[in-house]
Amino acid sequence: MSSPDSVTAALIVIGDEILSGRTKDVNIGAVADFCTDLGIDLKEVRVISDETDEIVDAVNALRARYTYVFTTGGIGPTHDDITADAVAKAFGVALPINAQARAMLESRWKETGTEVNEARLRMARIPEGADLIVNSVSAAPGFRIGNVHVMAGVPIIMRAMLEALTPTLKGGKKVMSVTVKAAVGEGTVGGPLGELQLQYPDVKMGSYPQMGKDRVMTELVLRSSDAARLEEAAGKVRDMVAAAHAKAGIAPPEE
Amino acid sequence: MSSPDSVTAALIVIGDEILSGRTKDVNIGAVADFCTDLGIDLKEVRVISDETDEIVDAVNALRARYTYVFTTGGIGPTHDDITADAVAKAFGVALPINAQARAMLESRWKETGTEVNEARLRMARIPEGADLIVNSVSAAPGFRIGNVHVMAGVPIIMRAMLEALTPTLKGGKKVMSVTVKAAVGEGTVGGPLGELQLQYPDVKMGSYPQMGKDRVMTELVLRSSDAARLEEAAGKVRDMVAAAHAKAGIAPPEE
Repeated sequence: MSSPDSVTAALIVIGDEILSGRTKDVNIGAVADFCTDLGIDLKEVRVISDETDEIVDAVNALRARYTYVFTTGGIGPTHDDITADAVAKAFGVALPINAQARAMLESRWKETGTEVNEARLRMARIPEGADLIVNSVSAAPGFRIGNVHVMAGVPIIMRAMLEALTPTLKGGKKVMSVTVKAAVGEGTVGGPLGELQLQYPDVKMGSYPQMGKDRVMTELVLRSSDAARLEEAAGKVRDMVAAAHAKAGIAPPEE
Repeated sequence: MSSPDSVTAALIVIGDEILSGRTKDVNIGAVADFCTDLGIDLKEVRVISDETDEIVDAVNALRARYTYVFTTGGIGPTHDDITADAVAKAFGVALPINAQARAMLESRWKETGTEVNEARLRMARIPEGADLIVNSVSAAPGFRIGNVHVMAGVPIIMRAMLEALTPTLKGGKKVMSVTVKAAVGEGTVGGPLGELQLQYPDVKMGSYPQMGKDRVMTELVLRSSDAARLEEAAGKVRDMVAAAHAKAGIAPPEE
């Protein structure tokens, strides 16, 4: 579905705590919603461990492939926070203390009476040539280098950083969606839906079963950046579902 | 941290609905917990779109790298369910109707009075040489081919399939963990924690800040497959945290 002028993105979630199951990720859904709102096509997510080579490989593979790369996690003050080191390595640049980042942190530390130490100053290390991403929650900034946006893993900080970098991103064509609910199983609508997909290759049609309720339900989701084609295809899908309901002798579900 | 005899895994989550944000994934956390319980080291997760080439590339890249690959999503009856096709392509095998899968489905359809049609029979197509993974929820089976385990995306079915395939998996060394809570920020414990990590390279130490509460909290999580070393390292970390609390003049948090 990607056209040459579409704006694409990948997300790299960095953290052993997600892979061990100890922490349940919520950043994937937040970044997905954010991208959809801006018309950016999120094409891929990778969750990887806190290992330098893994991060370097993922950053270099994905930054060559997509308009934007976002990363979450690993930019705090402890020894296992190695994202800045790995991203600097991926770009082949140094990782000095950044004066602006240091000033942001020291201003916050002064307010809160927090001691300046070597661990905390790790958070002021920013790859050479990067711009800072403001962190309104806890001051320690993220950064953007090339098309790679490095953000915190703590969800509230990650969301604040996403908001902060919005004006710097170009959006793509907005993709709209229409959901048609069917009170029959996927197997009943699967054949005719596949035929409609062939007629409307520019309208992506997905089918999602709803399990564990009293009644079998299927949600058919149509997505397109062309509003007229989307509405036309949705009309055909609604007619198809109405026919399936009539054949099964059941009342249609509430929309 | 992977040793030559460690058992590793990757998860591939297949589905446009996760990448668009429409559906919030819960399978990553469930598979992560499952792997940790069995002593399997989940090394990587990828979320990719419903596109054949993406699935083929991810399956082939990851099955060569890890002991096990799990996939979720895309094995239903509609045109956008292409996981079986893509996995067959990745292995270079045919995708015929499997007699055992068809019998499982027809038995369920007979019970529920469900019509047999071409769309539903798509779910009986299984790559040549694969074993079935029983689906106790809705009958349509998953399958295992080589080291790749193909499961449904609907969470309740995915979990049932995980349970079904447990006896076929070899577990690794069980990794145990100890959590030490500190009532100071990461920046305060970051330096000494990094020194302890150097002393205990076989005990992986992670630091996780807790945001948005009244009080700054940090959880230090130690993981190792060696219980004695883990306990020894945990003792050192507890002493370090107690010293930090004493220096800050604060009462330790409840464990």
